[in-house]
Amino acid sequence: MTDVIDLRGDWAAPPTPAMRRAMAEAEVGDDNSHEDPTVIRLEERAAEILGKEAALFVPSGTMGNLVSILALTEYGTEIILGDRSHAYVYEVGSAAVIGGHPYRPVPNDRFGGLNPRDVESAIRPPNIHFPRTGLLMLENTHNLCGGTVLSVELTRQLCALAHAHGIPVHLDGSRIFNAAAALGVPAAELAQDADTVMFCLSKGLAVPVGSMVCGSAEVIERARQKRKLLGGAMRQAGVLAAAGLVALEQMIDRLPEDHATARYLAEGLALLPGFVVDLETVQTNIVFCTLEPPLSAEAVAAALRDAGIRCSVFGAQQIRFVTHYAITRAHIDRVLSALQQIVCELGGTRLAVGPNG
Amino acid sequence: MTDVIDLRGDWAAPPTPAMRRAMAEAEVGDDNSHEDPTVIRLEERAAEILGKEAALFVPSGTMGNLVSILALTEYGTEIILGDRSHAYVYEVGSAAVIGGHPYRPVPNDRFGGLNPRDVESAIRPPNIHFPRTGLLMLENTHNLCGGTVLSVELTRQLCALAHAHGIPVHLDGSRIFNAAAALGVPAAELAQDADTVMFCLSKGLAVPVGSMVCGSAEVIERARQKRKLLGGAMRQAGVLAAAGLVALEQMIDRLPEDHATARYLAEGLALLPGFVVDLETVQTNIVFCTLEPPLSAEAVAAALRDAGIRCSVFGAQQIRFVTHYAITRAHIDRVLSALQQIVCELGGTRLAVGPNG
Amino acid sequence: MTDVIDLRGDWAAPPTPAMRRAMAEAEVGDDNSHEDPTVIRLEERAAEILGKEAALFVPSGTMGNLVSILALTEYGTEIILGDRSHAYVYEVGSAAVIGGHPYRPVPNDRFGGLNPRDVESAIRPPNIHFPRTGLLMLENTHNLCGGTVLSVELTRQLCALAHAHGIPVHLDGSRIFNAAAALGVPAAELAQDADTVMFCLSKGLAVPVGSMVCGSAEVIERARQKRKLLGGAMRQAGVLAAAGLVALEQMIDRLPEDHATARYLAEGLALLPGFVVDLETVQTNIVFCTLEPPLSAEAVAAALRDAGIRCSVFGAQQIRFVTHYAITRAHIDRVLSALQQIVCELGGTRLAVGPNG
Amino acid sequence: MTDVIDLRGDWAAPPTPAMRRAMAEAEVGDDNSHEDPTVIRLEERAAEILGKEAALFVPSGTMGNLVSILALTEYGTEIILGDRSHAYVYEVGSAAVIGGHPYRPVPNDRFGGLNPRDVESAIRPPNIHFPRTGLLMLENTHNLCGGTVLSVELTRQLCALAHAHGIPVHLDGSRIFNAAAALGVPAAELAQDADTVMFCLSKGLAVPVGSMVCGSAEVIERARQKRKLLGGAMRQAGVLAAAGLVALEQMIDRLPEDHATARYLAEGLALLPGFVVDLETVQTNIVFCTLEPPLSAEAVAAALRDAGIRCSVFGAQQIRFVTHYAITRAHIDRVLSALQQIVCELGGTRLAVGPNG
Repeated sequence: MTDVIDLRGDWAAPPTPAMRRAMAEAEVGDDNSHEDPTVIRLEERAAEILGKEAALFVPSGTMGNLVSILALTEYGTEIILGDRSHAYVYEVGSAAVIGGHPYRPVPNDRFGGLNPRDVESAIRPPNIHFPRTGLLMLENTHNLCGGTVLSVELTRQLCALAHAHGIPVHLDGSRIFNAAAALGVPAAELAQDADTVMFCLSKGLAVPVGSMVCGSAEVIERARQKRKLLGGAMRQAGVLAAAGLVALEQMIDRLPEDHATARYLAEGLALLPGFVVDLETVQTNIVFCTLEPPLSAEAVAAALRDAGIRCSVFGAQQIRFVTHYAITRAHIDRVLSALQQIVCELGGTRLAVGPNG
Repeated sequence: MTDVIDLRGDWAAPPTPAMRRAMAEAEVGDDNSHEDPTVIRLEERAAEILGKEAALFVPSGTMGNLVSILALTEYGTEIILGDRSHAYVYEVGSAAVIGGHPYRPVPNDRFGGLNPRDVESAIRPPNIHFPRTGLLMLENTHNLCGGTVLSVELTRQLCALAHAHGIPVHLDGSRIFNAAAALGVPAAELAQDADTVMFCLSKGLAVPVGSMVCGSAEVIERARQKRKLLGGAMRQAGVLAAAGLVALEQMIDRLPEDHATARYLAEGLALLPGFVVDLETVQTNIVFCTLEPPLSAEAVAAALRDAGIRCSVFGAQQIRFVTHYAITRAHIDRVLSALQQIVCELGGTRLAVGPNG
Repeated sequence: MTDVIDLRGDWAAPPTPAMRRAMAEAEVGDDNSHEDPTVIRLEERAAEILGKEAALFVPSGTMGNLVSILALTEYGTEIILGDRSHAYVYEVGSAAVIGGHPYRPVPNDRFGGLNPRDVESAIRPPNIHFPRTGLLMLENTHNLCGGTVLSVELTRQLCALAHAHGIPVHLDGSRIFNAAAALGVPAAELAQDADTVMFCLSKGLAVPVGSMVCGSAEVIERARQKRKLLGGAMRQAGVLAAAGLVALEQMIDRLPEDHATARYLAEGLALLPGFVVDLETVQTNIVFCTLEPPLSAEAVAAALRDAGIRCSVFGAQQIRFVTHYAITRAHIDRVLSALQQIVCELGGTRLAVGPNG
Repeated sequence: MTDVIDLRGDWAAPPTPAMRRAMAEAEVGDDNSHEDPTVIRLEERAAEILGKEAALFVPSGTMGNLVSILALTEYGTEIILGDRSHAYVYEVGSAAVIGGHPYRPVPNDRFGGLNPRDVESAIRPPNIHFPRTGLLMLENTHNLCGGTVLSVELTRQLCALAHAHGIPVHLDGSRIFNAAAALGVPAAELAQDADTVMFCLSKGLAVPVGSMVCGSAEVIERARQKRKLLGGAMRQAGVLAAAGLVALEQMIDRLPEDHATARYLAEGLALLPGFVVDLETVQTNIVFCTLEPPLSAEAVAAALRDAGIRCSVFGAQQIRFVTHYAITRAHIDRVLSALQQIVCELGGTRLAVGPNG
């Protein structure tokens, strides 16, 4: 395993030695009874960083989004969210399956944004034929759109629009610190107008397990009850939270390095024949790449795997790379060099021959 | 009330004298115990006409769609349906709220059709992040697209596509007899490839209350259990079913008259300044009309109401008229004449003055 | 069919000629749009009789109970109810399946009552391990306990207890007019302290289809939304409501006759060898009868059926008879005489031979 | 904190040094992608010990029970379980709230057993008024009955009964190794006839976080999908699983020590005036104790807390002690000596004065 370069996700980042040490020495208690001192410290610190009253430790981002939804709105209300959002596409439809919430997807633009006019016209007026609109969900950075960033302005505008209709907002800020780094603003500024924000410790922050939900004390108390209902209340979770505390101190400020690494990779990929990269969307640590036939996502990913390199496959023609603290420029050089080889082998004559060939 | 011309919906059609007589004399029993002889006859006749093994009487089209969904697929599976379909837009999100089904809307084209490629790419491959695709829903005629007709060919193609992936199909055939009349085919031909079909007795067929779900004996048996669960099992429902039997014998063949009346109305509307009618979508008994400012839907509808005429309002600039057996050409002449008056009053100079005026 | 004496349920009572006439002549409109004048009159009259602000017409008692639950309490809260209550035993678990409500049954006493101490200790204190208690359900008359009556005093005491804990009360008053008649009080007095009351038009009141939910205007408005969600909103339901209006005027005051008929039957049954009747529980129009071996419920019911008489079977050794307006003393005489014959044939020596035989 | 004797639950047992070491050194991977080598080893080992094909690591016992239910039976089916079972009383009603399952409690006997006749009569025959019976749940050891043990014979009999009706069985074996130790049989023998078994690593086995679900490969695959749906899929869960592997090797065989400690405590408590202990139910590591007035649970627990000792309060008059590896006889001596003091102070004259005093 030691030599594998795993770019499938930032969740592949291993815990740092400091985290392992902290976990081994963590002071623990029963978090189910809200008594684990390390979890309590982590929740307080997370709330402080995001500028919210309170926070809750949960075992996954999916659960973080789900308890936020269940805490913010009534069973069976409609949720407006992006049609390429992670919650709509990749979370097993859990808001509908568990919370009975009809999804009301509106188009994500190329950068993961939502058009306020689309959102406004998706809000349901009172009518006995309609479910009530119960929530607006935003995502920042936007995973499927390439790790793109939602600006402070658009976030504010969309939150204001929802609030003007009495609709709460949940921000899936799985990678909110990447967004903050890219924008050069504190994460709290991006979180300010949302009623709840979820962020993952287990992605670019390299913690083995866990996500945080931040919000008002009242909403977090309800989220805690929903976590219990779902079976997400753990016992001595301080062993995980200890790593989270390390991450909040040590891993946030270094995220721009991952962005630089991703940029370096993206620019290298863009030069490869048959590889199309939309460089404008490479804003953080994610690089999506569209392959032109005869290249295929499966073939390229398989060839990379043989070379000890892992990427993710999205459909027939797309692959995704995500950088994290354990990925260096030297790794990227190895990736690009492997890909040059692969392109030669897989690309065949059509790619090898240039426009004037 | 006697003089009101109600074009808000075909559900406004009053029961015919023959229906009232049949209801008064209906032989009844306990339909909850499946013993009402009139309901049984209606279910048999409906199944026969739609070419299915069995049928179930339900109090509404919304319940007919809901019990079909619950009978055809497992709780929590995803439903592919048109983004302008009645079930997605107007049924309170009931499939999600009651059945935990995430909606997966794909674009309806101008005529209410779905692009098979859109449907195919919406079908979920096996992946632990994805809900399983559990159902494809079609709608014929398509209400929000203007009473437009789904062809036998497209219906077959979409059903074949779904079935090739092991996915059942429910057809919201609320107005399937209008579609059949417009296409000149038996309704059974439109229903043939769908696993279940719902049609309404209470719309153009003028029955006071009730819809039918048709399908295999096994699926209808499950639908019967789901109807009980929802509280939709009625006692001596034969008093309603009696009107349904009259409708199946007397009201289907006359639907082309409603289509002619609607056409007559649509062509009249298209001549009014500020009224835009897409005549290609006027295929059955529904006429949508877009109003140009300064006209507004609310203002025109209010003015019509003062003239003893009712239409439906859809958003700021759209109104809808639906014809049925109680609406004659003479009524339409009254409507058009009232609208000419209204346009003069509401339209102001901009509409009154032509381009060369 | 004409000669069958159907004692399976009061739902077997056929509509009266006056009802059939009223249905045939009913003024109707779209009840889905809350415009059916006959339904509106029925809702107003039902509310008035039960002493509540508003009422809602629903297609069944099961739906009436379900929309009351959904309107009164939040999704997923616990419901305290009798362990022999109709809602717990016979309504497909709909409160749990549709509303996610855990059932918390407490023992029904012999007369269908609940012990206030049992109810109090079933109310959940605040604790993250517990669902919140969301509702207390009562039933009057109590079907499975034999049509027994809940007194005004016990109803008041149980409602006061629930309300003291902030818990609303729904009264399943499917046969509340039978209870009122037996107690000699207005139904409104039994309904007074409950937040919602459901009663059936389709049981002893002999209406073909329908039940009413009564409560505050606000709760009934929510119930109306839930009815729509379940697909229970009908179109020209005035054709059914017309019979309901007749029933409210003509059928309530005559219920004591059904009670007398039931009493007459119960006393006759009690004299038959092998038939055990708890006469203290025969308080209204229901008679449960336990059969001693070698008699069995199935065998006796089958023999009765051959004689043109229908009763209900409850388990191996119990049968139930329910009287209604179409059942006379002469019918009961025929039933008792048929049973004497049946006992001789089925009872064998053990029953035929007396204690000194 | 160091001096506190925490007897509230075995979940209070801190991780052992060996566990902390294993966690710090754990080899990890993405368990969401089923790639964490330590989790895989733990799942294989757990399945082996319980005699099942496969196992799944989950963050809590509540989630373990929930995914088992969701994997074994269809949405909305009825669950038969003990009326004092943990799943019915303490898991937020999650089977109903999340899975729409009506609860059908049957009486737990004094030792947590269920009477097969009660279970049989709770199984629903086919009838459109009934939910289908979907699951039988057992609990061993039985928490609320005092850590009592369900015998191999009764387990087999109840499983056979359920299976004869086509109903699967889930065993809440939260403390199954305590039951196995008390009975002197392998845990696999207790698990053999159940379709799924959940056991907790985080109770007597002293692991900080986690429970296991064991069953057939097919059911565990479904449980894995349900875990994802609930947000229970964690990333590098190997850091927790490492402790689980240590526990399975080192902590199971020593459980009889906890039982001896609990027995020692129980016998001491039974000698205290005003303390009633049912010694026949002290079969494993749990001791329930009923206090006679003027003693109260709150007062005794508060006084113990002042003495650095923690117990759990169950209602007004009951307290509970649970032993685990970190509790020694010396601790128990301190507890008993503190209680003697407390009884003197709280008990007043009535307890101090004997019958002949």
